[in-house]
Amino acid sequence: MRTTTAWQSRDTSTGLERAAIERRELRADDIAVRVDFCGVCHSDLHALHGLVGKPTDGLVPGHEFTGTVSELGSAVTGFAVGDRVAVGTIVDSCGECAMCRVGQENYCLNGVVTTYGGTDRIDGSTTMGGYSREYVVRADFAYPLPEGLDAAAAAPLMCAGITVWEPLRAAGVGAGSRVAVAGLGGVGHLGVKFAAALGAEVTVLSRTPGKGDDARALGAVGLLDTTDEAQLAQASGRFDFILDTISAPHDLAPLIGLLGLDGTLSVVGLPMPTEVPLMLLTRGRRKLTSSGTGGRRGTAEMLAFAAEHGITADIELVPSAEVATALDRLERGDVRYRFVLDLADLDAPATV
Amino acid sequence: MRTTTAWQSRDTSTGLERAAIERRELRADDIAVRVDFCGVCHSDLHALHGLVGKPTDGLVPGHEFTGTVSELGSAVTGFAVGDRVAVGTIVDSCGECAMCRVGQENYCLNGVVTTYGGTDRIDGSTTMGGYSREYVVRADFAYPLPEGLDAAAAAPLMCAGITVWEPLRAAGVGAGSRVAVAGLGGVGHLGVKFAAALGAEVTVLSRTPGKGDDARALGAVGLLDTTDEAQLAQASGRFDFILDTISAPHDLAPLIGLLGLDGTLSVVGLPMPTEVPLMLLTRGRRKLTSSGTGGRRGTAEMLAFAAEHGITADIELVPSAEVATALDRLERGDVRYRFVLDLADLDAPATV
Repeated sequence: MRTTTAWQSRDTSTGLERAAIERRELRADDIAVRVDFCGVCHSDLHALHGLVGKPTDGLVPGHEFTGTVSELGSAVTGFAVGDRVAVGTIVDSCGECAMCRVGQENYCLNGVVTTYGGTDRIDGSTTMGGYSREYVVRADFAYPLPEGLDAAAAAPLMCAGITVWEPLRAAGVGAGSRVAVAGLGGVGHLGVKFAAALGAEVTVLSRTPGKGDDARALGAVGLLDTTDEAQLAQASGRFDFILDTISAPHDLAPLIGLLGLDGTLSVVGLPMPTEVPLMLLTRGRRKLTSSGTGGRRGTAEMLAFAAEHGITADIELVPSAEVATALDRLERGDVRYRFVLDLADLDAPATV
Repeated sequence: MRTTTAWQSRDTSTGLERAAIERRELRADDIAVRVDFCGVCHSDLHALHGLVGKPTDGLVPGHEFTGTVSELGSAVTGFAVGDRVAVGTIVDSCGECAMCRVGQENYCLNGVVTTYGGTDRIDGSTTMGGYSREYVVRADFAYPLPEGLDAAAAAPLMCAGITVWEPLRAAGVGAGSRVAVAGLGGVGHLGVKFAAALGAEVTVLSRTPGKGDDARALGAVGLLDTTDEAQLAQASGRFDFILDTISAPHDLAPLIGLLGLDGTLSVVGLPMPTEVPLMLLTRGRRKLTSSGTGGRRGTAEMLAFAAEHGITADIELVPSAEVATALDRLERGDVRYRFVLDLADLDAPATV
């Protein structure tokens, strides 16, 4: 085993502890990655609070990170030491099931291995995430980070980015599409950027009309105040596709009402099970869907598209020692739009 | 006003009363239709029991009927006295809104006029349905009944048929599609026929394995017993499209589990609002949708397709005087697969 330094949970609070953790020695198809930057995702909060049904003791969060290849397994091709790479929410899958065969390893029918809190397919150990200075990963689940993308601002592409990319592509969003994005956080702001770059006319749906300038700066044509009944009525049936990135439980009815014929509401914020007003879907053959990150093929396509269109997250970069503050501020919604941890401070000796 | 004979409700029971009712004199764009055959739809039961929020006193149900043109309004072209016609669930719409302009008058944004219990756009009267010997309808909402289709067995196409046609077409079901149909009643059995004629491989989902032979006779490759966990597990992720025609409240989770990547569950049986397990939609980008009958264009296409493929409903034809028995048996699920009333008995004087 090899050792690295990480931010690790001992309870269900956001107060992570700096600790030495073990990584496996490289298998033939592994690479070692020096983690440079890791995004702070809302899922990390859920995991730390024990809301995903897994132990929090020993948890190391982090599933959207960029870094530098530091070592190669004996059978690895396509990477060299020093390459910039990116790793997302999944780090292994069976490779043989129907989902893996079509490049949707994220839905692996034999159980995908998540980047943290997952179970390694070979040794059964629990995976530990990117809030750490080194990660050992099967090379197939690391992606070359395209030139031109800032490594810190690109880290959130690996969860928030792919989370919006997959449903936008599945719905065929492109030139002429009328898209709305509900929730302007880490996921939502990337939804606006990607949808606009795909050629759609994008509107932000928000209860905070003051965010209109921010919405336009990200590429939206405007903001619709969802607390304003007149605005809702005027936009009734307007949108082909609505990306709902709100993670708190909320009523889907007003969003469904904004969909036109054959329109789709894609709920990616994963609120708890929700009472769906089926009759509203009926009026106009409207669709409700959801999705969870993406597979290898989609992730590679998303990175290529991001590089071509210069898309990265708007981030607040902080030293990793400030992780607890970042998590607490994220919990209050106090970030525009994604915290990214700079892990370089883990090279220095711990200060008390 | 003109007078005809109908089966009319005076309370919330299924005991309809034979009564004389008034029809409007023909407007320039109306035709009068002698109603020959009218299907008995599950919605009629809902309406009679007062479950759709409209008065039951005076109600005349019936929104899938075929008949013979008996008189033409002064401006009507395209029909002649003696023509066979079919009328479905809607009889007027604004013609100007976004939905009407794309041929989805069923979703008219200014309020579609339903065949019974609706409000006439000109005189504000309440529409009365096809459990009657004559109907006066705007010619645009009557359809020539294609040659070769039996007039009695074709009547259910006008509600049950279009109810399955629209979602099958919206989902692009065709050769190579794997389709499942849940519920083998009036709507479901037409779902099997249409999906099979579109080229799909169709499986019936049922809690009654004894219906396997019936399913195959309708064009399905087989029946999956939804009470058998092993069968459910084996078929996990198998279907591209599931048409759920069950009208009683039921758990959608097992059905969603049968959908493959980007698969769609279309709930057309209209159970009450249902707790949708969003997390299940997430695993595979699966979609939940619904729809309500169809517009003029879709209805005409459905009739043409039915004629081309010889599709009508499997019916039990009864004299209209037996309407109460038919409704009661329908309520118990005791019909294969649709009751159709023969209205000719209304020409004879009432017997006590």
